Amino acid sequence: MRIIIYGVGAIGGTVAAALALSGQEVIGIARGAQLLAIQKDGLVLRTPEKTERAQFSCVSDPTEIDLRPDDAILLTMKTQDTLPALERLRATGAAGQAVFCVQNGVANERFALRLFPEVHGMTVMMPAAISGPGEIAAFSMPRHGIFDIGRYPGGSNAHDTALAEALEAANIATFVSQDVMQSKYGKLLLNLSNILQAAFGLDADYTHLEALLRAEAEAAFKAAGIPWLDVGGADPRRTQLMQQRPIAEVGRLGSSTVQSLARGTGSVETDYLNGEIVLLGRLHGVATPANTYFTELGTRMVRDGLKPGAISMSEVEAQLSVLSAMPGR
Amino acid sequence: MRIIIYGVGAIGGTVAAALALSGQEVIGIARGAQLLAIQKDGLVLRTPEKTERAQFSCVSDPTEIDLRPDDAILLTMKTQDTLPALERLRATGAAGQAVFCVQNGVANERFALRLFPEVHGMTVMMPAAISGPGEIAAFSMPRHGIFDIGRYPGGSNAHDTALAEALEAANIATFVSQDVMQSKYGKLLLNLSNILQAAFGLDADYTHLEALLRAEAEAAFKAAGIPWLDVGGADPRRTQLMQQRPIAEVGRLGSSTVQSLARGTGSVETDYLNGEIVLLGRLHGVATPANTYFTELGTRMVRDGLKPGAISMSEVEAQLSVLSAMPGR
Repeated sequence: MRIIIYGVGAIGGTVAAALALSGQEVIGIARGAQLLAIQKDGLVLRTPEKTERAQFSCVSDPTEIDLRPDDAILLTMKTQDTLPALERLRATGAAGQAVFCVQNGVANERFALRLFPEVHGMTVMMPAAISGPGEIAAFSMPRHGIFDIGRYPGGSNAHDTALAEALEAANIATFVSQDVMQSKYGKLLLNLSNILQAAFGLDADYTHLEALLRAEAEAAFKAAGIPWLDVGGADPRRTQLMQQRPIAEVGRLGSSTVQSLARGTGSVETDYLNGEIVLLGRLHGVATPANTYFTELGTRMVRDGLKPGAISMSEVEAQLSVLSAMPGR
Repeated sequence: MRIIIYGVGAIGGTVAAALALSGQEVIGIARGAQLLAIQKDGLVLRTPEKTERAQFSCVSDPTEIDLRPDDAILLTMKTQDTLPALERLRATGAAGQAVFCVQNGVANERFALRLFPEVHGMTVMMPAAISGPGEIAAFSMPRHGIFDIGRYPGGSNAHDTALAEALEAANIATFVSQDVMQSKYGKLLLNLSNILQAAFGLDADYTHLEALLRAEAEAAFKAAGIPWLDVGGADPRRTQLMQQRPIAEVGRLGSSTVQSLARGTGSVETDYLNGEIVLLGRLHGVATPANTYFTELGTRMVRDGLKPGAISMSEVEAQLSVLSAMPGR
């Protein structure tokens, strides 16, 4: 089994580096400065304990890979980039290979299952960030993170156990699940705050807004009949396996949404995080004014090139209280 | 109410021309030769009875339109082009406007509802084709076609009745429905044959394959709990409103898939027609070998630049009988 990592960002990079360092055969697909850096010097993985340099082959497009039937393909791009990536994979001749949706949100699995028969979901709890071209910081110890993995729409099979074994050997705690989407919906609840951190900055206290977003989401899940599994602070696996620690010379880098805005990537995945709640609300008749507001804010921050922390919390609070007084929003 | 027609192809063009000829204010969004022809000389609408030239403004991108709150936006691109089109609309400032999904398939409504609150579905029964730049042929009489229209995911409101009234005045028979998706699923059953016509040509007899594709689809619908409404030959509205007739100087032009292949557009919508059945089958444990085969064939015909009719039916039949002997496909 080779492992193809499509998108060598914070998560894809940590996974690629950790797997390569464990002796696993890895092929990355990356772009721009990240691709050039990896091709030249490999990928540096900084953790609270040590700094290592991983070597693996890296290409700019799936068509450069001579795919094998037993390749495992990990989708590690953001959701807004998934559909064209799936098209590229198919153009390369991918067909029966196991495709693992490693992204946040719950939309990718359905996108992938339209084109590929063997689709799996992965729930990723892994505090990591790109700290420079060719360099990734992974802040968790003793393990790099906790993954749940299973087949979509349900169950699990040998593809899950094989990949889980490889990830375990790469210091990523991986649990095979019979209903991985339950855990992905639980993770989605945590990701609703990504935009809050992006809007108000790393040091802001947005607990009350977090509670508001989450309450809307839980109401939407209930109306839609979607079960979820809490994978947040109450998950006992975190205490044992995933303690976040600082890394010398690397500052706090924030959620993936913060990182996208800071790097000016031109898009954020808010449409597939808070926007998923908005969609469920519209489908099932649940009002979601706060998630709607913050989804729109994500779009506006990208459009206007705003940096993390650029938004005034008191202005947002004023607008939200006006919105909540508007019925039918 | 202005009506924005996003995609002035066979369907969008017929609707735009018919509405403009009825005195309705229309803005088209088109590309390339079609855009230039419409901007220069308007759009010629050929029907079995007469040829008329419609004049309406046409732009290349939504950002060129100063959108108004009461604009009705009709999505008339193919499904594979919908997501970027929705992004362009949002970038233009579209927000509360009614968005009508005029496309075949059943995926667009969900795509649109993630970004816009007021989404409607339209089922389109309208034999039409692009017969040249700036020229559309609409083969039905006495009406140009039959549309069902309603809100997504269900019900209907004033946006439906207002647009239905405008379409009726433009010689398109339009029925407001409380469950438009039922009729769109019924239409999807008819569209499963688009790829057959594309593969084997306009004169081939593929009745037996059509029955195979449809049986798989009905089994998948039943497993998924999806109701559908027959809008095919048994629909009594067809006899009265929609008789297909030849047009002098215009040959038979075939389904939208045939037209895409003939024009070499670089994509076909098979992923959202037969591919929808494949997806439902994978989600609900129903084998769909024939729809899977023809979805893959659509991809292959585009990739290899094959023209309509390029496929040998006996080869396909041989491969399908091998496939149906393979359990679990």
